[in-house]
Amino acid sequence: MTTTTKPSVRNASVDDLVATGESATYAAALDRSRVLDALIDEQAAADPTRFRMLTGDRPTGPLHIGHYLASLRNRVRLQDKGVETFVVIADYQVITDRDSVGEIGANVQGLVLDYLAAGLDPERSTIFTHSAVPALNQLMLPFLSLVTDAELRRNPTVKDELALSSERPLSGLLLTYPVHQAADILFCHSRIVPVGRDQLPHLEQTRSIARRFNSRYAAGHSVFPEPEALLSDVPLLLGTDGTKMSKSKGNVINLRDSADETAARIRLARTDSERRITFEPDRRPEVANLLTIAALFLERSPEAVADEIGDGGARALKQVVTEAVNHSLAGHRARRADFARDPAYVTSVLHEGNARANEVAERSLATVRAVMGMSY
Amino acid sequence: MTTTTKPSVRNASVDDLVATGESATYAAALDRSRVLDALIDEQAAADPTRFRMLTGDRPTGPLHIGHYLASLRNRVRLQDKGVETFVVIADYQVITDRDSVGEIGANVQGLVLDYLAAGLDPERSTIFTHSAVPALNQLMLPFLSLVTDAELRRNPTVKDELALSSERPLSGLLLTYPVHQAADILFCHSRIVPVGRDQLPHLEQTRSIARRFNSRYAAGHSVFPEPEALLSDVPLLLGTDGTKMSKSKGNVINLRDSADETAARIRLARTDSERRITFEPDRRPEVANLLTIAALFLERSPEAVADEIGDGGARALKQVVTEAVNHSLAGHRARRADFARDPAYVTSVLHEGNARANEVAERSLATVRAVMGMSY
Repeated sequence: MTTTTKPSVRNASVDDLVATGESATYAAALDRSRVLDALIDEQAAADPTRFRMLTGDRPTGPLHIGHYLASLRNRVRLQDKGVETFVVIADYQVITDRDSVGEIGANVQGLVLDYLAAGLDPERSTIFTHSAVPALNQLMLPFLSLVTDAELRRNPTVKDELALSSERPLSGLLLTYPVHQAADILFCHSRIVPVGRDQLPHLEQTRSIARRFNSRYAAGHSVFPEPEALLSDVPLLLGTDGTKMSKSKGNVINLRDSADETAARIRLARTDSERRITFEPDRRPEVANLLTIAALFLERSPEAVADEIGDGGARALKQVVTEAVNHSLAGHRARRADFARDPAYVTSVLHEGNARANEVAERSLATVRAVMGMSY
Repeated sequence: MTTTTKPSVRNASVDDLVATGESATYAAALDRSRVLDALIDEQAAADPTRFRMLTGDRPTGPLHIGHYLASLRNRVRLQDKGVETFVVIADYQVITDRDSVGEIGANVQGLVLDYLAAGLDPERSTIFTHSAVPALNQLMLPFLSLVTDAELRRNPTVKDELALSSERPLSGLLLTYPVHQAADILFCHSRIVPVGRDQLPHLEQTRSIARRFNSRYAAGHSVFPEPEALLSDVPLLLGTDGTKMSKSKGNVINLRDSADETAARIRLARTDSERRITFEPDRRPEVANLLTIAALFLERSPEAVADEIGDGGARALKQVVTEAVNHSLAGHRARRADFARDPAYVTSVLHEGNARANEVAERSLATVRAVMGMSY
């Protein structure tokens, strides 16, 4: 273990963090997340399972640069620090809000390609689809007994859908998916879950389920530790038109896109006619968004990037952004193309990940059955 | 195949019954159930899987004579006609409306003892606990995508709980248990489900799920056939005090009770002071209930039992009921005691049943994954 100048961190632990109670506010969650990050830096290499992480994606389409900057890059960073990593491809979540699974086979394969290209190492990270892990899915049953109908309906994502439900009735799967997500997180006893601010209520639900399971069915024993949120500090990125990224709007740069496709997409990006490039998110949101993208890839501040462009105008800005994206992703894209030429390997990664997830899930379910008196 | 004098029955099939559409009314359901019964008589021996049956119990306590007369005896009758039988011990249903699983191990064992004593043959009937069948439970996920929140809340059992929910909040498991029940029924492609009238809406929900699965995810192929209700013609039996049977009220005669316990319980039964025993359910509900119990065990009409007792009064009535119950259950109780002396055998019955249910469930889940494009 390395020494540190921050004794309060060195002496803290995930359990202490858990003991500090409900994350009532975002600020508190952010504070705890920062301490957690420091703990990981210091202790993960020596004790990887202690910080076991669950993260993942819904296989509804290709990953874009927003996923890369806010999530994928960070997963690899944590893995490389020694954090034991589980990556769930949440395929049942595809049908929470649509009738068709779409091109799910291709989407799942695309995710695995991006994971591998980004540097997730199947030896250290367990990549799996939750539909392949029956024992994980079975946890839905005891977990559903631990949440109330009122809690399910209070979930912000579910509430948003309820508000929109004049068009499409709320499905039972959407109503209950935070409980299924709890199964994804808890089956492998994850201690940390990288989340965005909007997902904090989901994680809070998972923490309640863990707490209630331990108290109601396990006489207070910690069968399921309460996981902690690791909040992303990446700001929300917009699409190239300045609105929310959306496949259907064509405002997204996907990781699998070629350099030329990327250049073309950025060339069409919305900007303004001021020559001088400045970072003013409120007054110039589209320009600020492009600066943020370049800055995140270049690992500099958006203000510094703006200063360097100076009076170059939108054209120079777009050139900087295009180069930043294409240069940073060149390696990723080359590796992705290499892996894509070996679909058998991609399949084997998934099969081995599924097998490992099943082992872990079966052990967890055996414990759950035992403590609930259901080992006959 | 035996010949029959009812050509309309001989030419019908379960599929024809399904094709006749929604069971709009109880009368229609009863009619269809009668035809189904006749079909089973005629064809089950030749083609057992065609009438595969799913039935079962919640392991919340010992089975009583109401279970025996309305359900258990009928299961054995159907098994002996050649119907392939699956009996689910619905252990997760115990925690739909209570916090503790209670004496679940003993309750499960008690159910198996009663099944074996009643004549369910583990060679022909698959007895299993659904908590032991992860692939069955996984079906919850795709099935939840096929029901709406509104449907879940319309379910009469759930509505009753909602009305009572000032005391205990509605749990997610209670809200969704009709979907889990659909998984119990559909995982083994049951064609018939013996139900009481109050369970018809549940079966209708299961039929909807099967229909929607086939149409939404299987391009109209019948991955899940729609099961048919086989309605019980046994009237609702009351406890010995004339109110609803309830363990906590002590008004129940359990199958495992001794002859003496049974006699004592019936001696305390509520009756009236009229000497002449008559079958008048509206005017004399307690007397009518005792007559019905005796009649069902004696396989006679309650009127005939009443006539025979004549002016014997309550005392003679109770003697007739006691003898009818104890005589009819003597064999059951002796066999139950024998099986109870061999707990290893009881455990092996459950283990073999669970293994068989798992095989069936894994095949079904593999099909579900394949048609949904989730075999990666």
